[in-house]
Amino acid sequence: MSQSMAAKHAIWPRKKDIIFNLSERAQRAEKNIGRENVINATIGALMDDYGRLITMETVYNEYKSIQNNDIAAYASLAGQPEYIEAVKKACFKEYMPEGHIRVVASPGGSGAIKLAVCNYTNPGDQILTSDWFWSPYVIISEEVGRKIDTYQLFDSSNNFNFESFKNKFLEISDKQERIFTIINTPAHNPTGYSVSDDEWDKILDLSKDVAKNKDKKIILFVDVAYIDFATKENSRAFFKKFSNLPENILVIVGFSMSKGFTAYGMRMGAAIGITSCENVAEEFHYSCVHSCRANWSNCNRGAMTLLSNIMKDSEKYKEYNEDKDRYKKMLSVRAKTFVEESEKIGLDILPYRDGFFVSIPCENPMEVCEELTKDNLYLVPLKMGLRFAVCAVSESKCKIAPRIIKNALEYIESKKVIGEK
Amino acid sequence: MSQSMAAKHAIWPRKKDIIFNLSERAQRAEKNIGRENVINATIGALMDDYGRLITMETVYNEYKSIQNNDIAAYASLAGQPEYIEAVKKACFKEYMPEGHIRVVASPGGSGAIKLAVCNYTNPGDQILTSDWFWSPYVIISEEVGRKIDTYQLFDSSNNFNFESFKNKFLEISDKQERIFTIINTPAHNPTGYSVSDDEWDKILDLSKDVAKNKDKKIILFVDVAYIDFATKENSRAFFKKFSNLPENILVIVGFSMSKGFTAYGMRMGAAIGITSCENVAEEFHYSCVHSCRANWSNCNRGAMTLLSNIMKDSEKYKEYNEDKDRYKKMLSVRAKTFVEESEKIGLDILPYRDGFFVSIPCENPMEVCEELTKDNLYLVPLKMGLRFAVCAVSESKCKIAPRIIKNALEYIESKKVIGEK
Repeated sequence: MSQSMAAKHAIWPRKKDIIFNLSERAQRAEKNIGRENVINATIGALMDDYGRLITMETVYNEYKSIQNNDIAAYASLAGQPEYIEAVKKACFKEYMPEGHIRVVASPGGSGAIKLAVCNYTNPGDQILTSDWFWSPYVIISEEVGRKIDTYQLFDSSNNFNFESFKNKFLEISDKQERIFTIINTPAHNPTGYSVSDDEWDKILDLSKDVAKNKDKKIILFVDVAYIDFATKENSRAFFKKFSNLPENILVIVGFSMSKGFTAYGMRMGAAIGITSCENVAEEFHYSCVHSCRANWSNCNRGAMTLLSNIMKDSEKYKEYNEDKDRYKKMLSVRAKTFVEESEKIGLDILPYRDGFFVSIPCENPMEVCEELTKDNLYLVPLKMGLRFAVCAVSESKCKIAPRIIKNALEYIESKKVIGEK
Repeated sequence: MSQSMAAKHAIWPRKKDIIFNLSERAQRAEKNIGRENVINATIGALMDDYGRLITMETVYNEYKSIQNNDIAAYASLAGQPEYIEAVKKACFKEYMPEGHIRVVASPGGSGAIKLAVCNYTNPGDQILTSDWFWSPYVIISEEVGRKIDTYQLFDSSNNFNFESFKNKFLEISDKQERIFTIINTPAHNPTGYSVSDDEWDKILDLSKDVAKNKDKKIILFVDVAYIDFATKENSRAFFKKFSNLPENILVIVGFSMSKGFTAYGMRMGAAIGITSCENVAEEFHYSCVHSCRANWSNCNRGAMTLLSNIMKDSEKYKEYNEDKDRYKKMLSVRAKTFVEESEKIGLDILPYRDGFFVSIPCENPMEVCEELTKDNLYLVPLKMGLRFAVCAVSESKCKIAPRIIKNALEYIESKKVIGEK
C-alpha cells in the first residue's frame, strides 16, 4: 500500500471539479470549430456576447486608482471600519433591519458561510437547505463534520414547497438544539428562484413558533450572493422582516462583492449578523473574528477600499449603478428569451425569477449533459437536472438552446424506452 | 443571563487585539507630540524613516498594469498554474528540493498554516513549536481543537536548544501517531533567529530516526514568511535537505507574498508539500484543495497574476530584486544598529540573525511595556519578553531605543526590590 500522511478526516474521494472540466471542454470546442458554433453555458460569471468576462468599468477604474498603501497594508481582522459601513449600505440599501447588526469581513460569500457554519452548529449537526442547492454547501459542511439535509424546493405545481420546508424544519428542531437553515435568495443558484415576501412571512412565522421553546437556537443563513441581479423593485424589502425577532433567532446574511461588482477573483464578502440581542451581536463579532484569525487572518484590503470608495461617494455610486443596470438588463433579456422559448416549445424548466442560472429538471443529468456536448452545447449536470448559465450566453444562443436541450432529453428518453422494450 | 447563540466551541474570551491597541496608542502619541518624539516599534511591516508603509514600486507598478479580467475572474482552487510555478521559483530559487512537490494557493501564510494543521493532525493532538512563537499559531490550533506545546528555543548560552527540541519531539512521538512541528525560519518572528544548516541536519537526523518506526507520521511545517529578508548568501540552502526524505516525513513550506513583495493586504501565499512519495504528494493536493473550497474557495487572482508576471520576466524580476535589496539593506542597518547598541550598553537581547523583529527577554512584559509608553516608546509585550519591530523604526531611533528599554527594565526591577523589602 502506498504511504499516506493526511489525517483520516482529511481524505476525500479524488474528484476533478466537474464544472471546471466541462468548461475546459467547451473552450476547446470553441477553439476547434469557432466560438459562434458553441454554446458554453457552464460559467457562473457575467460574460458579454463574445464570451468575454464582463468587468465593470466604474469598478475597475476606481480599483486602479487606489493608493498603493491602501492595497498593501494589513486590514483589521473584522474588516476596515469604512468597509463595514459600506457593506451595510450595499447590502441593505434602504431596507436595513432594526436591531443589533455586526459585519465581519470574509473571503467572498464562501468565507461567510464557513464562519456561520463553524460557529453556529455542532459537529454532527444537520444543516437544512433546499434539494436544489449550490454544491459547495456540502463541502463546507462535511469538512467540519456537519451534514446537509434538504427539503423539496418546489411542489408538483412548481410553487415554493413550504410544507416540505416546514416538515424538515420541525423534524430537525425535534432532534437538535440548533436549527441552521441556508436560504439562497433572491436569484437562487441554480434555479433562479426568489423567495417571495409572503413566503418569507411563513418562514419567519414558523421560526418564531419554534423559538417559543427557549432551548432552541434558530439560525437563518441568507445567502444573497446574487441579490444585485434581482429585478423586482423592492427585492430587498424582506430584510426589514429581520427586525425585532426573538432573541433565539439569529439571521446571518452572506454578502459577496463577487457578482454585484464583477469582483469574483478579489475574494471579498462579509457575514452580517442581525439580532435583537446585543450580547448575541457581540458574541457574533468575537466568534467570527476568532475564526478569521484562525482560518485566513484578515481579508483583501484593496477590495475593501474599493467598496468603501464607491459607497461613500454618491456620484461614483450612481455611475456604478448605471454600469451595473446595463448588465442587469442584458441578463434579464437573455433569461426572458430562454424562459419564453422554453415555454413556447414545451421544455420543462424550474420557475425562474432572477439571476445567473436557469435549471432544467431531468433524469440522468450526466448522460444528457454528454449528449448535449455532441450538439456543442455545454452546461452543468446537477443531481436532479441541468444548470444553464444565462449569465454567460448571448441572447441569440439563449433563443436556440431550449430546442437543443429538449431534443437531447427526448432522444435520451427514446433510447431508454427502446432499451426497456 | 443574556441570550447566547454561538456553539460552545465558538465562544472565546473577548479580548481586543493587544498589538492593534498599542499601535493605536502610538499613533495617537505621534499626533499629539509629533512623530519625531515617538518610537513606534509595534508594526510588523516595513516602514520608511518617516513612518510610512513601504510599497515596492516594481511590485505596484506591475500590479496596476494587470488586465481587469485577470483580477476579476475566479482563480483555480489550487491556484493558477502559472502562480504555482512562480511560487516554486520565488520560494526555492536555486535550491529546489528533489522529490514530489505540490503547491496549493492560500490566503497569506496564515492560510497555509491552517491547511497544514487541519489536514495533518487529529483533534486533540499536540503541535510542537518553540517557546518564543508567533501567537496566532495558538489561535489557528485551538480553533480546531489542537494544542500548542513548546520547546525552549535557546539554551542558557543563547544557542539553539537542540536538546530541548529533541526531548519534546520524542515525548510527542511517544504518545502520538503524528508529530507536527512548526519551525519559523529564517528570520524568526519574534526573535530574528535563523536555524543554521548544522542545526537543520540535527533536526532532520532526529526526524529520520523517529521515522524508522513506520507507524509514525512526521510533518515539518516550515514557516518562511520572512525568508526574503534573510541576509546570509545561501539562506535557502536548507531547502535542498528536504530531498529524498523517508516517505513518512512530509515537509510543508508556508510561503507568503506579504513581506517579500510588500503585499500584506493582498492575502496571497501557498502551502508547498515536499515528499519522496507521489501518493503523499497527490493526497496533499486533494486534501488541501478540499479545505480551500471548504474555507475560502479560491484566492486573490490579481495577486497570483502579479507574482506570475514578475517571476516569468527576468528583467522585471531583476528590477524587483534591486527594489527589495534596497529595503533589505535598510532593515539590516537598523537591526545592526539596535543589536550593537544593545551590546554596548549591556541590554540583554535574544540572538538576532535576520528579519523584522528583535526580542528582549524580561519578566512582567506588560508592565515594562506600559512603563515604556511613558517614554513614548511603544512595542509589543510577549509572554516572555518584548518584541521590538526594527522593520518599522528608523536607524536613529534604533540607536536610542536600547538605552530607553534598559532604563525601564532597571526601573521596574528597582521598584520590585523596594517592594520586596
